[in-house]
Amino acid sequence: MMDSENNISPLELKHYLEVKRVEIDSKLEQYLNNNTFPGRLLDAMRYAVMAGGKRLRPVLCLAAAEAVSDAGEDELLAAGCAIEFIHTYSLIHDDLPAMDDDVLRRGKSTCHVAFDEATAILAGDALLTLAFEILSEDTMRNGHRDAKTHQAIKIISRAAGPRGMVEGQMQDILAEGKTLSLEMLERLHALKTGALIRASVETGALLAGANERQYQHLKEYAQLLGVAFQVADDLLNIEGDPVVMGKSAGTDADKKKSTYPSLLGMEASRVKASHLIDRALQLLDIFDKKADPLRAIAAYVIQRDR
Amino acid sequence: MMDSENNISPLELKHYLEVKRVEIDSKLEQYLNNNTFPGRLLDAMRYAVMAGGKRLRPVLCLAAAEAVSDAGEDELLAAGCAIEFIHTYSLIHDDLPAMDDDVLRRGKSTCHVAFDEATAILAGDALLTLAFEILSEDTMRNGHRDAKTHQAIKIISRAAGPRGMVEGQMQDILAEGKTLSLEMLERLHALKTGALIRASVETGALLAGANERQYQHLKEYAQLLGVAFQVADDLLNIEGDPVVMGKSAGTDADKKKSTYPSLLGMEASRVKASHLIDRALQLLDIFDKKADPLRAIAAYVIQRDR
Repeated sequence: MMDSENNISPLELKHYLEVKRVEIDSKLEQYLNNNTFPGRLLDAMRYAVMAGGKRLRPVLCLAAAEAVSDAGEDELLAAGCAIEFIHTYSLIHDDLPAMDDDVLRRGKSTCHVAFDEATAILAGDALLTLAFEILSEDTMRNGHRDAKTHQAIKIISRAAGPRGMVEGQMQDILAEGKTLSLEMLERLHALKTGALIRASVETGALLAGANERQYQHLKEYAQLLGVAFQVADDLLNIEGDPVVMGKSAGTDADKKKSTYPSLLGMEASRVKASHLIDRALQLLDIFDKKADPLRAIAAYVIQRDR
Repeated sequence: MMDSENNISPLELKHYLEVKRVEIDSKLEQYLNNNTFPGRLLDAMRYAVMAGGKRLRPVLCLAAAEAVSDAGEDELLAAGCAIEFIHTYSLIHDDLPAMDDDVLRRGKSTCHVAFDEATAILAGDALLTLAFEILSEDTMRNGHRDAKTHQAIKIISRAAGPRGMVEGQMQDILAEGKTLSLEMLERLHALKTGALIRASVETGALLAGANERQYQHLKEYAQLLGVAFQVADDLLNIEGDPVVMGKSAGTDADKKKSTYPSLLGMEASRVKASHLIDRALQLLDIFDKKADPLRAIAAYVIQRDR
């Protein structure tokens, strides 16, 4: 699967991801401590945010910026953390009894099980709001950056909102028990998971000062990556190891959800994911080796946890 | 209650509020249509936003700006609408079965009753996110305004987030069945309702270019107004006309919530509200008649619906 242009070995990627993850985790913890009061709300927010996770979205933000330039990390980390808070809020709310009613996430009790439903709703609300607090706060220190971070708020809020992630979750709920067309399924996932993945890459590219051509290539890379990510996720839900996944396998089928494997079959889904990643890698040809992390992540996305 | 310095008659205030309300409602409707896809999510968002309401927060934002200067209305309306969307999201989530479990709001079924719980949670999430979309979008047209609207995002997100409204709601839930000290009750309400009321006035003052002294006076005015608003709300909950309130009277007592009347008694609560408003009016003495709407609103806040 790995393209020959990709010069990062799986071992090096593992190291890269680990270094970034530690850096991001430390910043997430810092934001939680500095921007909340001690108490039950913070406990629930921290529980959900620190439950683990690969921090794929912030890593994509940082790696996209690296591909373009050596941008200052402070602003990028702030943006990456904001996106991760938004991602975590969406998981908390999606897991609620009124939504997907999941009790396990990353091998731990979901937030509403560990705390209670009201606290989980509020922890999600707080993380979503905190994301915008961070995006507006961290950039006031460098007045000249305002226009760019303002643009980042636009990209991120649009991706997360009623023309993005929230609409995707609504469509996902409405689709339960129905068989979707492939087109409808792609549209649903483009909103539900794709929009925030695209926003992560776009934000990194924007803050690092990408030119128009670089920006377009990275945007398309992220779009393809997002679809591949979802196909891989659907495959993992069927054949994944529950220990690795931290939740039960086969839950999509139990909920009668349309998935790529249910519409295309397992093998065709694998081929599709692989083709998407090949195309995503081609789009990175205009970049030098500074885009190697993005290249390695693309391969990783469809190989993870297997 | 009306101060002699206040030159707006109740009839004129009614007209002022009505003109502003129509203007704000039209802009809210426009944002909903332009920034969402047609479908169930938009239906639920529109249902909650257009259920009525006095639009007190956006009016305060506009009136605070008027007190300072004749600022361009576009940006102020955008900020006011963003705040109203945040206010509406908080009402939707507060009414949920896991929270206050209210079935009536402004005389209509609450959002989760009219739709369902999942849709109500998502409609709230969408409105909160849309607020930041509007704040970041509307200002890109005027590049030079970025720094100020960026600051507005900071003020609003902080007021709504885990050091503001969300924390207040958490404390409110944790306080149920307990008798709070007056100090704890004031702290709770300063977060739950006070923070967003203050942010409304501060945002208007900021966008209109208030100087430091004007800003401080308006901020303190808003702080006092917020407390008076809550005291009046508590009184209304006990003695209000259910038809006017659009919900049952006595619900706070049923839920064993600490309120100003339960801690201070009815008469002392009325006196407290009145004193707060007197002090709020004094703070407006540094402004000329352009602050008359703010003066009239102060009187209105403790007289409403009676």
